[in-house]
Amino acid sequence: MFEARLANGKTLKDIIESIKDLVNDANLDCSEEGISIQCMDSSHVSLVSISLAANAFDHYRCDRPLSLGLNSANMAKIFKMMGKDDSVVLKAEDEPDNLTMMFENDKTDTIADFELKLMDIDNEQLGIPDTPYKCTIQMPAGEFQRIIRDLQVLGDACTISCTKEGIRFTVSGSIGTGNILIRAHDAEKEENSVKIEMEEPVELSFALRYLNFFTKATPLSAQVVLCMSPEVPIVVDYPIEDTGFVKFYLAPKIDEGDEEE
Amino acid sequence: MFEARLANGKTLKDIIESIKDLVNDANLDCSEEGISIQCMDSSHVSLVSISLAANAFDHYRCDRPLSLGLNSANMAKIFKMMGKDDSVVLKAEDEPDNLTMMFENDKTDTIADFELKLMDIDNEQLGIPDTPYKCTIQMPAGEFQRIIRDLQVLGDACTISCTKEGIRFTVSGSIGTGNILIRAHDAEKEENSVKIEMEEPVELSFALRYLNFFTKATPLSAQVVLCMSPEVPIVVDYPIEDTGFVKFYLAPKIDEGDEEE
Amino acid sequence: MFEARLANGKTLKDIIESIKDLVNDANLDCSEEGISIQCMDSSHVSLVSISLAANAFDHYRCDRPLSLGLNSANMAKIFKMMGKDDSVVLKAEDEPDNLTMMFENDKTDTIADFELKLMDIDNEQLGIPDTPYKCTIQMPAGEFQRIIRDLQVLGDACTISCTKEGIRFTVSGSIGTGNILIRAHDAEKEENSVKIEMEEPVELSFALRYLNFFTKATPLSAQVVLCMSPEVPIVVDYPIEDTGFVKFYLAPKIDEGDEEE
Repeated sequence: MFEARLANGKTLKDIIESIKDLVNDANLDCSEEGISIQCMDSSHVSLVSISLAANAFDHYRCDRPLSLGLNSANMAKIFKMMGKDDSVVLKAEDEPDNLTMMFENDKTDTIADFELKLMDIDNEQLGIPDTPYKCTIQMPAGEFQRIIRDLQVLGDACTISCTKEGIRFTVSGSIGTGNILIRAHDAEKEENSVKIEMEEPVELSFALRYLNFFTKATPLSAQVVLCMSPEVPIVVDYPIEDTGFVKFYLAPKIDEGDEEE
Repeated sequence: MFEARLANGKTLKDIIESIKDLVNDANLDCSEEGISIQCMDSSHVSLVSISLAANAFDHYRCDRPLSLGLNSANMAKIFKMMGKDDSVVLKAEDEPDNLTMMFENDKTDTIADFELKLMDIDNEQLGIPDTPYKCTIQMPAGEFQRIIRDLQVLGDACTISCTKEGIRFTVSGSIGTGNILIRAHDAEKEENSVKIEMEEPVELSFALRYLNFFTKATPLSAQVVLCMSPEVPIVVDYPIEDTGFVKFYLAPKIDEGDEEE
Repeated sequence: MFEARLANGKTLKDIIESIKDLVNDANLDCSEEGISIQCMDSSHVSLVSISLAANAFDHYRCDRPLSLGLNSANMAKIFKMMGKDDSVVLKAEDEPDNLTMMFENDKTDTIADFELKLMDIDNEQLGIPDTPYKCTIQMPAGEFQRIIRDLQVLGDACTISCTKEGIRFTVSGSIGTGNILIRAHDAEKEENSVKIEMEEPVELSFALRYLNFFTKATPLSAQVVLCMSPEVPIVVDYPIEDTGFVKFYLAPKIDEGDEEE
């Protein structure tokens, strides 16, 4: 028996929304510690790791570990029906065919419950690196989203370089070249600050298409954390308060001439 | 000679907007008592009945009964040009080829007048039942609209069941099953209340596609009234203050396996 | 060396936005006096004339006259990346391959710079008439935009007639006929007034498709100025404070039966 209640259902909705265009099917792993998802995107280019601890929930019970095979687009469709102030309950039997999703709203005296069909998904074992990084950048998530979206009009690949001066995004394409430099600075509002921790400068290139997918997680966090080291995947980390995260991993482009479609 | 002036032109605009996707051509019947439309939708599945009494207008004159054959999409196109605070005048001769629609705005010193071409439409005699219903539900029109729109992602048909407990909408489809239960309750704002008058419980199934068409009338009324009895068409009634209504009638699905497209 | 800085970058963005659907490639002519563009639209039907004086800029330097051959859609794409409070710097060498566009924002400590590729464009010599007009109409630019957009649902061509009474827009098409009359009047807010200076009444017909293109310049000016004389092109003039303008010229339709597109 698995049962978890979140008063602010929007967090769960935003988590699923953040991966539904990137990932088709994924296992939602439920254990005593909380819920998590780890999977490759549907074209096996990037990696998604999601975690929400048991103490993030108002009520949490998981008698024994469960893997719930979900279609993320279908789950997102059901979350679309959630009112903005609804609480969410997730529920499953021990050998479940369905995940029960309940949305409750005291104000409108409405209870909606949905049975989402589950499926069997092969459990890939994913080796997620847990190494220290040479550069760690904290910046407003909305700013990062805007930059990635904007730069796509210029080209397919973006070079991100981090120096003491700041973080620079560079794209080059048929209509011209663009550079956006954001300097580390403290803003009045903590969440508007840009912070750089750096051991050595790093410069890596990435497919903008995937970075753009990752920014669907923007509603989850005021700040995004980018972790980079030479020749290893970037981590694009959206922390969910102190109780969870949505992290994306993307390998850098080795050959600059090798463009993603 | 027919001439009718409505200071708040938006009501007439919303009426036409509410049926333009459902009904192609319809007769606007004008008499001393007011204006009305009664017709089947273009696929002859549901029935529309509209009425606006003479006393709803600031000025109303109709010397003898007239049937004005309108194309609702064309009329809606002309209403699109109405400014949001404009008054509307409808005018027609006794044997009219055109309906004159005038929009006036004192603030911008603008007068727009349009001649909408009329056509001959066969007058269908529609037998609209006027029977008491076993269940009458009053609920916020916006809430009803949201439920009907949302449930369409799950399937094509919706079962509406009314009990003392409340009103329940159920849909079942390939990705899963959904239930939305709204309990009768009094809200602080009268228009947010849900009221159920019930002689006996009723459960009927309907094509969501048509219910969704009906909810285009939502801007006309804070509350929608649903009237149901076993084996007869549901009435989805949008009252327009005390002077009129837009009502839709839809027969229940007899065989649950018989799916509308 | 050409360098020009505008604290309110939005004006330059709006100028390019106003012509990007109408004009593909155009020369941006830079001289000591300021910058200007003069060109035909891509189907050689209408004419565009833009001017922004050197004193409109916070900083302006142009050592010798330059013609910068731009693709307006590409330039608009780069302007899309401008934040709403950014300042803009335009910069070019004396024999430039690129135009440098810089967007700066002190608040977010962001600098974005773009290199837009230039091209050679034949300099057409355009004879722009500089004659007095029989009618000059000043009206709210937003009102003009709404009328032109709305009337397109009725037909392709619009007759604009200016009399002492006011300015009248007439369209006739398959679903009916429309007339919009705006009377000259003084409004409380100067920018909402409608003013007509008239030597003699003028009535001319134009392709709505082109008038609609012109209204893309609406964000630049609170008021649009229409200048008309019999048998000569209308001028649709969007003044930019006292330092510039975007003007469009369109020849009237000679034969009313001769429909565009």
